Amino acid sequence: MPEGQSSAPRYSVGQEVIFQAALTCFYRHGYDGTSVRDIAKASGTTPAAMYHYYASKQELLMDIIGRFMEQSIEVTRAAVEAAGDDPSARLFAAARSHVLWNASDVMSSFLVNSEIRSLEPDNRRLNIAQRDKLQRIFDSVVVQGVAAGAFLTPWPREASRAVVTMCTAVATWYKSAGELSPEEIADRYGFLALSLVGGQADSVSS
Amino acid sequence: MPEGQSSAPRYSVGQEVIFQAALTCFYRHGYDGTSVRDIAKASGTTPAAMYHYYASKQELLMDIIGRFMEQSIEVTRAAVEAAGDDPSARLFAAARSHVLWNASDVMSSFLVNSEIRSLEPDNRRLNIAQRDKLQRIFDSVVVQGVAAGAFLTPWPREASRAVVTMCTAVATWYKSAGELSPEEIADRYGFLALSLVGGQADSVSS
Repeated sequence: MPEGQSSAPRYSVGQEVIFQAALTCFYRHGYDGTSVRDIAKASGTTPAAMYHYYASKQELLMDIIGRFMEQSIEVTRAAVEAAGDDPSARLFAAARSHVLWNASDVMSSFLVNSEIRSLEPDNRRLNIAQRDKLQRIFDSVVVQGVAAGAFLTPWPREASRAVVTMCTAVATWYKSAGELSPEEIADRYGFLALSLVGGQADSVSS
Repeated sequence: MPEGQSSAPRYSVGQEVIFQAALTCFYRHGYDGTSVRDIAKASGTTPAAMYHYYASKQELLMDIIGRFMEQSIEVTRAAVEAAGDDPSARLFAAARSHVLWNASDVMSSFLVNSEIRSLEPDNRRLNIAQRDKLQRIFDSVVVQGVAAGAFLTPWPREASRAVVTMCTAVATWYKSAGELSPEEIADRYGFLALSLVGGQADSVSS
């Protein structure tokens, strides 16, 4: 699976139109600032069309957030596995792929980080479990690197979280018109992640 | 000025009540998801009370965001100046104070990062100028450290931005009930920032 590209099955055209309209509305106006009527209008359909695919606006939000998180986990796991056994290569790959993934869909990335507040309790629990799962992939790469003597940080968990948050944040400032391509930014973040954990870049090539 | 404490003049009690109610409403429901009526209700006043202090809901949002950014700049500048001339001590102090500042007001920190979208063009320009000003303080600390040979990163600007974003993000996961105190997290982030730029912690004590 190429980096930044999803293997999840595509929705029907009808559902995809609703999904994308909701994504754009939530991104621009927030979940509470968007009505089902707004989504219908933005998608050129009717509220009934949304209710054909989703029981509620909440289910739609959860689909957007849950889908993005599920794919984040999948993309990160694939990148780490493809990198082989070397801890530096694994962390480099994880950080690099997390930057590319978030930069590839800045709207979903933003919603994942701004609309946890709008998830109902059961959905929130599912979301927290997904976040933990993603964080644990990074944690385990960093902890293994420390155990192997490849990373010198005294705080593997804090370092691991800092890697994830700095890579996620690229979506908040990255502009496609920017000076550096997403790939160039991702490479630099791969190396920055290695610095952060007190690792060496010797075994890594971008 | 103690870290994480503002030197800005306090508002009158009446204005402070409106300000805090709006902050809470925007934090929970977003700017577009909050009406003037919601703010009045949350503050136990009337819409007329808000209009006594603010010409519009937009002016109130800008007051919240602008005030927090202004104080972020002030707090960071003071921390860097108090740290003296050593580049490592300066970066450590900047990162540490940025963590403490954001952890001290997670609601404002969140709004600064989620409601840029809701700022009208002139306010958005002011906000971008404030963000640039804050980022430039970190940039100049990192660039000076690289010039002095204290920091080895080949990418001072990317490293500097990564420091700011990872420190800001502490507000998104920090819980006052957490295992570590804000001061302990801030200390670790000070050291992580030094690692990130390829610096040494020798000259720094938390």
